[in-house]
Amino acid sequence: MTSHPISGYTRVYAHFAYPSEHVRTPGVFNAYFRRRGIDAVCIPVKVAPAGLAAAVAMCRSWENLAGIGVTMPHKETIAGLLDERTEGVRRAGASNVIKRLPDGRLLGGQLDGYGFVHGLKTNGFDPAGSRALLLGAGGSARAVAMELALNGIAALRIANRSRDRAEALAADVRREFPELAVSVADASTVQDATLIVNTTSVGMKPDDPLPVDLSGLTPQVTVADIIMKPEVTPLLEAARERGCAIHPGLQMLVGQLDVTAEWLDLAPAREAVGDMAVAR
Amino acid sequence: MTSHPISGYTRVYAHFAYPSEHVRTPGVFNAYFRRRGIDAVCIPVKVAPAGLAAAVAMCRSWENLAGIGVTMPHKETIAGLLDERTEGVRRAGASNVIKRLPDGRLLGGQLDGYGFVHGLKTNGFDPAGSRALLLGAGGSARAVAMELALNGIAALRIANRSRDRAEALAADVRREFPELAVSVADASTVQDATLIVNTTSVGMKPDDPLPVDLSGLTPQVTVADIIMKPEVTPLLEAARERGCAIHPGLQMLVGQLDVTAEWLDLAPAREAVGDMAVAR
Repeated sequence: MTSHPISGYTRVYAHFAYPSEHVRTPGVFNAYFRRRGIDAVCIPVKVAPAGLAAAVAMCRSWENLAGIGVTMPHKETIAGLLDERTEGVRRAGASNVIKRLPDGRLLGGQLDGYGFVHGLKTNGFDPAGSRALLLGAGGSARAVAMELALNGIAALRIANRSRDRAEALAADVRREFPELAVSVADASTVQDATLIVNTTSVGMKPDDPLPVDLSGLTPQVTVADIIMKPEVTPLLEAARERGCAIHPGLQMLVGQLDVTAEWLDLAPAREAVGDMAVAR
Repeated sequence: MTSHPISGYTRVYAHFAYPSEHVRTPGVFNAYFRRRGIDAVCIPVKVAPAGLAAAVAMCRSWENLAGIGVTMPHKETIAGLLDERTEGVRRAGASNVIKRLPDGRLLGGQLDGYGFVHGLKTNGFDPAGSRALLLGAGGSARAVAMELALNGIAALRIANRSRDRAEALAADVRREFPELAVSVADASTVQDATLIVNTTSVGMKPDDPLPVDLSGLTPQVTVADIIMKPEVTPLLEAARERGCAIHPGLQMLVGQLDVTAEWLDLAPAREAVGDMAVAR
């Protein structure tokens, strides 16, 4: 539901996913558009990787398209299909929100990291000074890692099933932030982490194991997940039972509503966001 | 607004137009989906003729797309871009509703004619036995002409700015309906018509002339328009002033709601419609 009935004037925010049934973005964005009186509608576009290039090509011709939201498994692939990219996309190697420019060119942006950290801060946790353990090394991990680094964490440790990807991400973070202590974990254990962030999909299915061994977890550690369904994952549930502060994935999405609407020219811009300069 | 909040399960009915600002379809279809509790949303897709092929290509990959609605100026061009066509499309040379099959192929249908005649009948006018004057010879004219012929009109006269197109349409109607008296008008005058149907775009702009000289119009003549904005065109206004029964264009759209939803598998089918067999 949108505040306006959908008319020929309504702008569309197309949300690409595969599968799409689990996505929360259309519901969250449409409630937001309604709340702010924005004449736009967010719709699910279920498109497989093989169809992604054709879908992107269409979007250049779709004149009332405001932009494209992107989620698994497309965030990294789509970054290579666009006409321009922001610094944030260049840095993260992935795009989660694409702006359709008036001439049809597509400009990829990356607001996952911003949304994630903005969500943490809004909920009372400033990551500055944290020792962060990042679970996963995909597109979302990269965006979160870069944004945490921008926000002054003290150390970053990356744990991933494929160690090669973890090493690659660590190298990229070191290149962008040479002062930051970045390491790759030998095992998914808590050790001295004060912030744990799960960016893997482990926890989406009911019988998934925990993505990290929680032995030694103390109540001082903050635990965040970027999975949105279930809203409270088994990881977050276990952390809550141990007395930790938890941050559900939906906050990453809610944390980027304003900045997305402003960047897509659906709402007047109020603040500039760091990584949104166009990359050269 | 739809009855369901839009979620990852929602099916999309994309309405192609250029321009799109004037279209009534999203509003009418979304109200219908809400009324019938159908989890689908109709959205405007403003796409220029140069972008049409790319837009069609994307739709093959768009798995939660139920179908495509088509209006000016795409109805005839799009018929050539599809994988399969119904008999109605073959006959009309134009498609106004396209079904996305589960394997991604696109099956073009033509429900304008059905919707138009169904709308006339629902509002108490059975065209059987009429002497029809058809204004225009484009895709919609063709659909209306064929459906009127199927519904037993006594004679058809076609008036169009370009006489060649009128002759071509007349020849096509004669080929499909050899028994019907079909002629091409020398001028847009009422003569002995008992039903006048405007299928041109003359009447959309406030300063448009009337699409037919109304001298000699008697109250026994029924006058219909397929323009939806304004709802009552200057032609319909003038006809009403002369005491004629009038049929606004919105009825053509309302007349095809049920059959479109059923054909796109958004609602259980209740009745078969003549021309929807797949053409060979």
